[in-house]
Amino acid sequence: MPRAPIEARIRNLVEKLKQRGVDALWVIQPENRRYLSGFTAEDPQLNESSGSLLIGPGRRLLLTDSRYAEQAKGQAHGFDIITVKGDWMGELSRLLDRLGLRRLGFEAGYLIWGTYEKLKENLQKGNGHISLVPFEDMVEDMRKIKGPEEVQAIRASVEMISAIVQHIPAWLRPGMREKEIAWRIEDEARRRGAEAMAFPPIVASGANGALPHAVPTDREVVAGEPIVIDVGVKVNGYCSDTTRTLFLDKPEGIFLEIYRIVREAQLKAIEHIKPEVQSNVPDKEAREVISRAGYGEYFGHALGHGVGLATHEGPRLSPTKPEVLLPGMVVTVEPGIYIPGKGGVRLEEMVLVTEEGAEVLTKDLGFYPV
Amino acid sequence: MPRAPIEARIRNLVEKLKQRGVDALWVIQPENRRYLSGFTAEDPQLNESSGSLLIGPGRRLLLTDSRYAEQAKGQAHGFDIITVKGDWMGELSRLLDRLGLRRLGFEAGYLIWGTYEKLKENLQKGNGHISLVPFEDMVEDMRKIKGPEEVQAIRASVEMISAIVQHIPAWLRPGMREKEIAWRIEDEARRRGAEAMAFPPIVASGANGALPHAVPTDREVVAGEPIVIDVGVKVNGYCSDTTRTLFLDKPEGIFLEIYRIVREAQLKAIEHIKPEVQSNVPDKEAREVISRAGYGEYFGHALGHGVGLATHEGPRLSPTKPEVLLPGMVVTVEPGIYIPGKGGVRLEEMVLVTEEGAEVLTKDLGFYPV
Repeated sequence: MPRAPIEARIRNLVEKLKQRGVDALWVIQPENRRYLSGFTAEDPQLNESSGSLLIGPGRRLLLTDSRYAEQAKGQAHGFDIITVKGDWMGELSRLLDRLGLRRLGFEAGYLIWGTYEKLKENLQKGNGHISLVPFEDMVEDMRKIKGPEEVQAIRASVEMISAIVQHIPAWLRPGMREKEIAWRIEDEARRRGAEAMAFPPIVASGANGALPHAVPTDREVVAGEPIVIDVGVKVNGYCSDTTRTLFLDKPEGIFLEIYRIVREAQLKAIEHIKPEVQSNVPDKEAREVISRAGYGEYFGHALGHGVGLATHEGPRLSPTKPEVLLPGMVVTVEPGIYIPGKGGVRLEEMVLVTEEGAEVLTKDLGFYPV
Repeated sequence: MPRAPIEARIRNLVEKLKQRGVDALWVIQPENRRYLSGFTAEDPQLNESSGSLLIGPGRRLLLTDSRYAEQAKGQAHGFDIITVKGDWMGELSRLLDRLGLRRLGFEAGYLIWGTYEKLKENLQKGNGHISLVPFEDMVEDMRKIKGPEEVQAIRASVEMISAIVQHIPAWLRPGMREKEIAWRIEDEARRRGAEAMAFPPIVASGANGALPHAVPTDREVVAGEPIVIDVGVKVNGYCSDTTRTLFLDKPEGIFLEIYRIVREAQLKAIEHIKPEVQSNVPDKEAREVISRAGYGEYFGHALGHGVGLATHEGPRLSPTKPEVLLPGMVVTVEPGIYIPGKGGVRLEEMVLVTEEGAEVLTKDLGFYPV
């Protein structure tokens, strides 16, 4: 990863920290950590950290343990790497004391309550001069607006998943099981060099498609029923996320109508994505199309979300908590209609907010219209 | 999942809650949630919940959103399913008020600091009668001792990964890339019906093997060098975790010696696994073997950890925070020696603590001795 963008991010962060009067931010959230240091290790488990950063004016430290020390040295240029042994909470407290910090920022939306309490207790045992200051989404907010190098990385990720999805009709056959289809997609992703799937693939056919977050089952797909395929890959840390609904034949029953409504809602939403628009506007526009068609109660989730180092990040395109869309944001637009017991249709594009309006990053795969 | 074990777990939990004088426990940790309800949904992301439980005397509620409501109804028998829309923190607070709870337990080792603060704030806006009581590892401690149905599930998971690993020498060839090997293992796991890998496979050859948590690279494996393969699958929610170090020919240089030392340390540790023994004893025994051989500084991590619904859970076999081993616990025994810049050897078995001593669950694959 080139150093220049990371340097700029750190300068930007340090400026914010100065304004807020804290001496350093303790960064534990894995994507924030990677964003600010280039250190790519992932946490083995929610309650197990592969490392954390201390960033402040003139200060760049990466604390890790012996498992990751080598990797940290190779990746986090400009950081002092501190290898912690055993009681890392105690070591962190002593380090903070030694550095003479007074006000330490922490990630309120990620730090575990119990860890916070233990750190506070440890600090009180020290010289007792350090206060902990909660920061909500400080780095997450920075991550919402992608730099050119990030847009490029996202394009590569989108390109790969688009190619994989485009190829699906060439091998998808009635009688294949959802799990088998999901696995074939994963296999293609690996062959093309993806680091990982961005999230476990969703392949939801027939009635299963009525569950927006269905897990693939042993159900065999049938021609004519909607098959919702929601997939994404991770390439150089950056995620993609796209959904297509396939039929393997003429759509049965009401699903052609539903498909067209969902697509219309999606296009309408995309028209309303541009700088300075509130993020609830595209959601409202899509929801209106679906409601007017009489399916309002069957679209229960938000329209979309930001995508970057995480599959789900800011900004959210939802009815609540609107925020202003700005150039460099990358969001999904994924309306859906889910008929319990029958099936669902969801269509999802990834869209970049540009200076002029919006650019659809996902490829037109020739699946529209049905 | 049969209901009887879950009923017993809930009764056990409710008894503990009564003793601690709380009206209910709010369960958000995904494996705890599954353990107590049979609801198998996973959280899409660390900061996104697929649901939570409220369990107390005479009370079993599962709160989720529209995405998971159907699944929850199908899986969490005996639970009232509450589908939350939008502001779930507000809805939770109102629900708690309505239920007339006074003391609500929460998972201190999992709840995010910011969520705790928001809940507290919301509760104060309500009738203000509810206090939040932190519980450290209450359900996690229950999960350490596996019931017969859990041991059976773990055996199935171990059986699958053992079969996969046993088959590796039949297809592993010099010149294959680490990533390709990892992928082949994942592919075999899917073909055999695993739900998922228990964790991303580690395939670390040559110098890469000196990183205990190496991520597979494009490096090609070479005959004679150590190739550390650390893998596990998830079957019916239960994890397995095993490591073998392969050579594809006679071990080069010091690695035969190192291999024998690691194996000796492992066998020594297993000898010391039995009920009523402190969990730091097997670690100490293994560490002594390695230290006496002059490699003490090259074994930086703990000897092992519990395995169950999570790959890493209690009890830990480490030098610190010892606890008593008891029948029904399932732990890994995984000493290793890592020579920076040269390579590493790690061997890992899964062991069940029995009434009499220990049973090695992983199969002898005929790889020992070299």
